[in-house]
Amino acid sequence: MEFDTIAAISTPMGEGAIAIVRLSGDDAFKIADKVFKSISGKRLIDMASHTIHYGHLIDPENGQVVEEVMVSLMKGPKTFTKEDVVEINCHGGIVSVNRVLQLILNNGARLAEPGEFTKRAFLNGRIDLSQAEAVMDLIRAKTDRAMNVALGQMEGRLSRLIRGLRQEILEILAHVEVNIDYPEYDDVEEMTHKMLKEKAAYVREEIMKLLQTSQQGKILREGLSTVIVGRPNVGKSSLLNSLVHENKAIVTDIPGTTRDVIEEYVNVRGVPLRLLDTAGIRETEDIVERIGVERSRQVLREADLILLVLNYSDELTMEDENLFKAVEDMDVIVIVNKTDLPQKIDLDRVKDLAASHRLVTTSLLEDRGVDELEEAISSLFFAGSIEAGDMTYVSNSRHIALLNQALHSIEEAIDGVEMGTPIDIVQIDLTRVWELLGEVIGDSVHESLIDQLFSQFCLGK
Amino acid sequence: MEFDTIAAISTPMGEGAIAIVRLSGDDAFKIADKVFKSISGKRLIDMASHTIHYGHLIDPENGQVVEEVMVSLMKGPKTFTKEDVVEINCHGGIVSVNRVLQLILNNGARLAEPGEFTKRAFLNGRIDLSQAEAVMDLIRAKTDRAMNVALGQMEGRLSRLIRGLRQEILEILAHVEVNIDYPEYDDVEEMTHKMLKEKAAYVREEIMKLLQTSQQGKILREGLSTVIVGRPNVGKSSLLNSLVHENKAIVTDIPGTTRDVIEEYVNVRGVPLRLLDTAGIRETEDIVERIGVERSRQVLREADLILLVLNYSDELTMEDENLFKAVEDMDVIVIVNKTDLPQKIDLDRVKDLAASHRLVTTSLLEDRGVDELEEAISSLFFAGSIEAGDMTYVSNSRHIALLNQALHSIEEAIDGVEMGTPIDIVQIDLTRVWELLGEVIGDSVHESLIDQLFSQFCLGK
Repeated sequence: MEFDTIAAISTPMGEGAIAIVRLSGDDAFKIADKVFKSISGKRLIDMASHTIHYGHLIDPENGQVVEEVMVSLMKGPKTFTKEDVVEINCHGGIVSVNRVLQLILNNGARLAEPGEFTKRAFLNGRIDLSQAEAVMDLIRAKTDRAMNVALGQMEGRLSRLIRGLRQEILEILAHVEVNIDYPEYDDVEEMTHKMLKEKAAYVREEIMKLLQTSQQGKILREGLSTVIVGRPNVGKSSLLNSLVHENKAIVTDIPGTTRDVIEEYVNVRGVPLRLLDTAGIRETEDIVERIGVERSRQVLREADLILLVLNYSDELTMEDENLFKAVEDMDVIVIVNKTDLPQKIDLDRVKDLAASHRLVTTSLLEDRGVDELEEAISSLFFAGSIEAGDMTYVSNSRHIALLNQALHSIEEAIDGVEMGTPIDIVQIDLTRVWELLGEVIGDSVHESLIDQLFSQFCLGK
Repeated sequence: MEFDTIAAISTPMGEGAIAIVRLSGDDAFKIADKVFKSISGKRLIDMASHTIHYGHLIDPENGQVVEEVMVSLMKGPKTFTKEDVVEINCHGGIVSVNRVLQLILNNGARLAEPGEFTKRAFLNGRIDLSQAEAVMDLIRAKTDRAMNVALGQMEGRLSRLIRGLRQEILEILAHVEVNIDYPEYDDVEEMTHKMLKEKAAYVREEIMKLLQTSQQGKILREGLSTVIVGRPNVGKSSLLNSLVHENKAIVTDIPGTTRDVIEEYVNVRGVPLRLLDTAGIRETEDIVERIGVERSRQVLREADLILLVLNYSDELTMEDENLFKAVEDMDVIVIVNKTDLPQKIDLDRVKDLAASHRLVTTSLLEDRGVDELEEAISSLFFAGSIEAGDMTYVSNSRHIALLNQALHSIEEAIDGVEMGTPIDIVQIDLTRVWELLGEVIGDSVHESLIDQLFSQFCLGK
C-alpha cells in the first residue's frame, strides 16, 4: 500500500531529557534530509539502515539552527510500520520538540492522527488487529500483571488461539460441504454429524474458556474501581495512605485534559486498584455524609470493590449498619481498624453483618493486618488462577462482545445439529462464528471500525 | 575519568508511544547484552557503533520476556557523555518503562541522579558549565525566543565571549608581571598603565553589556510573572481566555509533584507570561476582594507585570482607585475593556491615574485591542532590542551574580590604576575578575557547587 509521510511527537509531553519526533512514509528520509545537517555533511538517504547520526536541524527558510539532534534511520520493511521510519531524538521540553515537529511539517510531512503509526503497521500487515489493540493496552498498563497480559496479546498469543479456532471451523465447514454435495452417502452424513458435534463442542469449550478470563482480564486492563467507605475518623485516610505507601501509586493524566482529571492507581499484588474519591477522602472524609443520600448509592454501584472501614474501639452505629445495607450484594471487604485501642465494637454483630463478605482486622497505626487485606483483595478476584502466568486473558470489551456473539452462534449450531436442522442452516451459524472470530484479529472488519479503534490511541503511536 | 554505569528513564513520565531508558558508562554494552536478545542472535558488544537493533528484553532470572525494544548503541567518545551509551527504546507507559529500568538496575547499572548524564558530559570535558546549564534551560524553555537564547548558550556563544574576556585579562596580567619584574624601565610602566586602563575599560564594557541583557534574559528564561487585577465583571476571565486562545498556553508540571502545582505560560510574541492566580480568576474572580487586604499587596509586589482591567461602561469606583494605588511604581498596563458598550467611565481621570503606565482600550467581546495589548506587553520589556536575534543573553541567576561581582572587581582595578595604587594590589583585583569569569564556564568551581547545580536537573538528562 502507499501512504503519505506522517509525523508526530512520540514521547509524552512534559519536561524530559529526550523527546522524539517520528516520521513514517516513503518521503521520511527525503524530508529529514531537507532540514538535517550532519557533522560529516553526508545525506541521510545515502546512509545505511538502522544507523544513528548526530547533527543539527536547520530551518531551510532562514538558515537558523533549530536544534541539536540525533537522527535514527530505519528503512522499511523492518520497521514498526513496515515503511521508512526516521526518529529525531531532540532535547526534551515542550517548546523544543514542538519546534522540531513544526519544522518537519513545514517541509512536507503531515501531522499523524492518533494511532496512525500503529494503524499503518496493521494495514501494512505487520500485526493483526488484536495485536494493535494490545499495543495501546501495553502503554496504559497499570501493573506488571496487566502488562504481561498485553505483552502476550501483542506477541500474538490471542491471535494464534483465534486462528486455531477458525481453522477448526473451516474444517467443519469443509465436511459440511461434502455432506451437502454427496447427500447419497449415508455414512458421510453420520460421520459428519459426529465429527461436527465434537468439533463444535471443542470450539464452544475454547470460547468459554477465553470468556472466563474476561472478568479478570478487564480488571487487569482497566483497574478495579474501589471505594473506601466508613464513618469519619475510622481510618479511611490511613487506609488510603497505607495502600499508597506500601505499594506504588501510579498517577495518570487522562489525555486531552491538563489539570482536571487525574486517576490514581494503586498496585496491590499486581491488581490495579483505581481508587475513587481519593481526593475527597484526603480532604474531608465526607463520604459518609453522602452515603445517606439516595443518589450516593449509585456511586457505590459503579465500584467493583468496596472497602468498608469500621472502628474497633467504638460501638457500631446506625450509620455503620446503613453502610452494610448500601453495599449488600457487592464485592466488599470489611476492615475493622484500630485494634491497637481497647475493643468496644460488637464483633459478633459485625460477623453477622459481614456474613457474605470478607473480614479483616487491622491496626493501620501499627501497620498490622495490611498484608491480610492485600491478600483478601488479590484472592477475591484472582483466586489462584492468575499465578498460572501463561494464561491468555481476554481483556478488551470489543473482543469480549465478539466472543459472546460467537459463543451464541456456536451453541445455535450445536443445537441445530442435535435437533436435526437441515445442515445448510447449521452452515450459516458456523460461518457466522468464523466471521466473528475473524473480527477479533481484524480479518473481516469494517473500515469505519478500524478508524474508530485507532482514534483512541495516543498521538505518535 | 572513570565512572560506574548509570541508567535512567530519559523521556517524560506519562502515557506515550515511546519511552527511553538510557545507560552510560564502561559497562553499558555489557549490561545491555545480559538482558537483550536480538533477532539475529548477535551480541551488542560485537555490533558497530551508532547502530540500532530490534529484539526483546529477557529477564535472565526467569527467562520471561519483559518488553519488545529497539536498542541504540553509541560508543564513546562520540556520545552525549563521551562514554559508551545505550538507549533502550521501549513502548511508552509507566509500567513498561519502569520495568525496563528495573531490569537494567538489577543487572549492574546504578540509578542515575538528576542531571548526572549532563554532569558526566561536563566532567568528561565535552561541554563547559554554562553549556551544561543551557541544556536545562533548553528543556524548560517556554517560548521560541527563550529557546534561541538557551540554544545559543549551549552552542557555546556565552562561553566564547567569556573565554575571550579571560584571555584579555591574562594579557593584562602578563604586562603587569613585566612591570613588577622590571620596575626600572619607566616606559614599560607608562605603557602598562595606558594599556591596562584601556583593556580593563574594554572588559568592564563587555561585562556591562552582558549584564544589560540580564533582565530580558531572565524574563525569557523564567517567564514574566503576571497578575490580572480588576473589579468583578470587568472582563478578567475574558482577558485570560483571550491571551490563552490567541497564543499557545503551555502548561508545565513542576517536577516532584503530581497534582498540586501546575504553572501556565502564555506565549505573547515570544515573551513567556507566567499567569499568577489564573485558577482563581477562572473560578471565582475573587482577586479584588483580596486586594483590600494589606497582605495582598505583597502578592502584587512579586509580579513583574500587572494587567489592571477597568470597565469602559461603568463609572470609576473607589475600588478602582485603590487598585491604582496598590500598583504604583510597578510595571502596569491599564486595560479599559468593554468599548462595545456605551461609555460611562471618566477617561480623563483614567489617563491621570495611568499617567505613568501604558493604556490600552479593548473590546474583548469583539476581539478588538488585543493586538495593541500584546504590542504593549512586548515593547514594555523588549523595546526593539530583542529583534536583533543574535544577541547573547545572560539569563542564569548564577551567571548574573558572578558577572556583577566581576564588574565590581574590574571597577576596583580601574580605580586603583587611576589612583596610583601599587600595581600588585591591582593585580589581585584582576586575578579575581579572571577567576569569577572562570566560574561562569566552570573552570574554577567547587565540587559541591557542581553537585548542587546538576541536582536541579530533571532525571535522565
